Amino acid sequence: MQAGTPLQPGPGRQPSLAQTLWRAAALHAEATAVVDRDRRYTWAAFAQRVARLAGALQALGLQPGARVAMLADNSHRYLEYYHAVPWAGGIFAPLNFRLAVPELAAILADCAADILIVDDTHLETARALVGAQPVRHLIHAGDGPTPPGMLAYEALIDAHAPVPDAGRCGDDVAALFYTSGSTGRPKGVMHSHTNLVFSAVAYAATIGLDEHTVALISGPLFHVGAAGLCVPAMVAGGRIVLLSRFEPGQVLRLIEQERATVTSMVPTMLRMLVDHPEAGRRDLSSLRTLLYGAAPMPEQLVAQAVPLFANAAFTHCYGMTESTASVTALPSRYVMPSHRHLDKWRTVGRALPGIDLACVDGDDRVLPPDAVGEIVVRGPLVMLGYWNQPELTRATLRHGWLHTGDLGRIDAEGFVTIVDRLKDMIITGGENVYSAEVEAAVYAYPGVAQCAVIGIPHPAWGEAVHAIVSASPGAVLEPAAIIAHCRSLIAGYKCPRTVEVREQPLPLSGANKIDKPRLRAPFWQDRASRIV
Amino acid sequence: MQAGTPLQPGPGRQPSLAQTLWRAAALHAEATAVVDRDRRYTWAAFAQRVARLAGALQALGLQPGARVAMLADNSHRYLEYYHAVPWAGGIFAPLNFRLAVPELAAILADCAADILIVDDTHLETARALVGAQPVRHLIHAGDGPTPPGMLAYEALIDAHAPVPDAGRCGDDVAALFYTSGSTGRPKGVMHSHTNLVFSAVAYAATIGLDEHTVALISGPLFHVGAAGLCVPAMVAGGRIVLLSRFEPGQVLRLIEQERATVTSMVPTMLRMLVDHPEAGRRDLSSLRTLLYGAAPMPEQLVAQAVPLFANAAFTHCYGMTESTASVTALPSRYVMPSHRHLDKWRTVGRALPGIDLACVDGDDRVLPPDAVGEIVVRGPLVMLGYWNQPELTRATLRHGWLHTGDLGRIDAEGFVTIVDRLKDMIITGGENVYSAEVEAAVYAYPGVAQCAVIGIPHPAWGEAVHAIVSASPGAVLEPAAIIAHCRSLIAGYKCPRTVEVREQPLPLSGANKIDKPRLRAPFWQDRASRIV
Repeated sequence: MQAGTPLQPGPGRQPSLAQTLWRAAALHAEATAVVDRDRRYTWAAFAQRVARLAGALQALGLQPGARVAMLADNSHRYLEYYHAVPWAGGIFAPLNFRLAVPELAAILADCAADILIVDDTHLETARALVGAQPVRHLIHAGDGPTPPGMLAYEALIDAHAPVPDAGRCGDDVAALFYTSGSTGRPKGVMHSHTNLVFSAVAYAATIGLDEHTVALISGPLFHVGAAGLCVPAMVAGGRIVLLSRFEPGQVLRLIEQERATVTSMVPTMLRMLVDHPEAGRRDLSSLRTLLYGAAPMPEQLVAQAVPLFANAAFTHCYGMTESTASVTALPSRYVMPSHRHLDKWRTVGRALPGIDLACVDGDDRVLPPDAVGEIVVRGPLVMLGYWNQPELTRATLRHGWLHTGDLGRIDAEGFVTIVDRLKDMIITGGENVYSAEVEAAVYAYPGVAQCAVIGIPHPAWGEAVHAIVSASPGAVLEPAAIIAHCRSLIAGYKCPRTVEVREQPLPLSGANKIDKPRLRAPFWQDRASRIV
Repeated sequence: MQAGTPLQPGPGRQPSLAQTLWRAAALHAEATAVVDRDRRYTWAAFAQRVARLAGALQALGLQPGARVAMLADNSHRYLEYYHAVPWAGGIFAPLNFRLAVPELAAILADCAADILIVDDTHLETARALVGAQPVRHLIHAGDGPTPPGMLAYEALIDAHAPVPDAGRCGDDVAALFYTSGSTGRPKGVMHSHTNLVFSAVAYAATIGLDEHTVALISGPLFHVGAAGLCVPAMVAGGRIVLLSRFEPGQVLRLIEQERATVTSMVPTMLRMLVDHPEAGRRDLSSLRTLLYGAAPMPEQLVAQAVPLFANAAFTHCYGMTESTASVTALPSRYVMPSHRHLDKWRTVGRALPGIDLACVDGDDRVLPPDAVGEIVVRGPLVMLGYWNQPELTRATLRHGWLHTGDLGRIDAEGFVTIVDRLKDMIITGGENVYSAEVEAAVYAYPGVAQCAVIGIPHPAWGEAVHAIVSASPGAVLEPAAIIAHCRSLIAGYKCPRTVEVREQPLPLSGANKIDKPRLRAPFWQDRASRIV
């Protein structure tokens, strides 16, 4: 707020994303907020650009609650978009650039965004999307020349005065993150202002974020994986250092150059860092927190990474789009070799402050400690629901708990272990088989590059365990040998009955996971018993 | 929740105090939650006692939203009361035992509590309160014999089964903290579930609280000063170590014995610790955070305290009952002698995450940096309002901002300095004089034990600066000498024109501050121009 202006009736007691920007700009005006290649913006400059972009969006006719889509690699403009759309009163709906045009078209139709922001890299896709879609305005947020028919992002910022925050807050929707289900109708997960602010503060409390934080973001900003660190770091008044895409050498260089204090990655990304020739030559001592998710950290990888990131706490987190950000965290000490005897390192840790977790059976009855069931979550970071899908929302949030679709167990101390996706569990001859466990056994076989274990129809057992694999370059895979290998590791009923070796890489979903529904579909055509 | 029970429809996405207890008990069942003299309760046992006490309250007829008062020194039962009343669906309304019977009666009448819990120490007061008051049930929460006509707290817990959480959450009122205004109608500050949980998480993020926290509580639990550390520490799953009342030797012994990691005090309490003969003999190395409020930490006191608390961060916090807990914090480094040149050590620091602050003039217009005006606050920790006082609530929360009544300034980096209470500021001959500044000058005069500087009517200047003082034992105070001393420290127009030396200690308000309204009243009788 400018001196001399009256106090604006704002969100008052309700959390608001705009309010967090207002605070950061008020407290840290001259500190650097964003570093994007050779561009650096202070909080004052960043907030100014956000309020001007918000003015431009309003001038284009943005109504309260209207959606604005973005299709772009990471850049400072992506962060401006995160903030400017809610500031202007709208809802930001980032698009996964890995999706095909028909998938993107379905999402645009679902959220009815009439403004689409696109960068240089994705111009072709954007052009293909216009026409049949609800999009009325295409904004070009790139450094190259603005193509005819598009509005230039920087010109819009220059041409519009900053506008006041539209005052949306609390349970108003701020963001729509589409999940990566590649079949069926797209699911737009609604994040409220309270969701974003509360989860940010709970996460900051858990991993320790403040105005001295320098967060290196290498994952794509269309995904909650990156947003889940980016938003909390900004709410805390920290600095964001962006990579347009993950590249291990660049990550190492930027940690050294920008003195990054925190970053997040999956174990395979960390493996690429550790194996990189520059790893030992970079000064990585600034890194205080290394967040990882998706899989436990192998002991050998920890042993290699600890000397490299001597000051870093290795913190395992678990969350999903529907929970806005992480719901659990496993503190570093449990990950370290010295504490492996506590046997917590395969877990994803415990609930963040303000969050409840439970493990339930198929009738939504609470299970005793260590029993496997579906993990359910409640608390202020649970999504409002799915956009325009009230029935799916009611089913997913029944009894006020988010049903994660993850199978897991919770021990007597509250540590959570994820064993599989509920829908990936295979029931064969009355036994539950967790595909993730079988996949881990298959992956341990030399030369396996990719593996998906699925259930396929079987006349006697209901389902049979089937593995689909692809080989590493130069490797030759023998189905019988893989099955024999599995038998040496896991119980016979869990082992694949059949193994299919593919020459082509397995299909990936939008979130870069192997697309199991697509793999399962041909086996289950014309059968109602398996919801693919 | 017990295994086998269905998922209970609970608060869902809304924050709830009960949910935080549920989480702590689920995660840390066998860890110690509370230490009170020779009694220690695990989280499992504590939660069990809370759910049983809630059952007893419901059996006594407690309705949703009904108030339960408590008049007691600190004990584990006070913490059970904090949680059991909201768990049962009610509102806890703790009473300041320093108030006189008529003041307490006015509060009980205002909140219409029909259950009053009392300990051994305050039995006489409680008896005096019954009769004219709405109280129907008196619960004796002491270790002595239960007097006739009262219900025994432990017997109630033994006799009742645990009940499920009543599910109150979000904007439901959880607590009523009465402020210490000693004149006029009592003001019950309504704290919602969201207020308590959000402020707890924001505070945990700021000062670093988690399940390893051991919080030593030496202030009275009827006051937000103690509640503001106690609730966040419990929400984080930390341990509470209670003193029934502040006693410096006992504080030192308990820090050593219980390995306390955090405590809070005002500088005068710290002075008593530092000067205590046992200070140098105790191992105080466990203390990581020493929170203080109410006044800046004198440099000499820091210099003495730092070697004693070698591992402690000295963190200055500022808040008020109406903001649930602290709204700002000044990190330790600014307090240290090495950073005094940054000139932030007299400030109360910057806004907590999720909180906005502004400084406004009398027309609620935002002031430029460094200009003195009223500090206003917005965010999820601002109270719902004053109990049954909608007009006062509207006035205090106008434009969605809490008007703190504190005069201060905010610098360009967001650091806040409090200069005086708005109503304590004196306007003399058109000049603003901050009573706190004048009092600091008077206190610097040897032999001054207490001092209050007030404005009294003056025919030419509107108000004149008047000091009322009492002497330390053995000291003799001369008004003229005090005025001359002030002239050597502050501008002439700020100096007291008159000084009154009292033989008796000055009257104190409920929060143990000098009761200025009472001192001002005789001067302003029959005048409307000064709201005492």
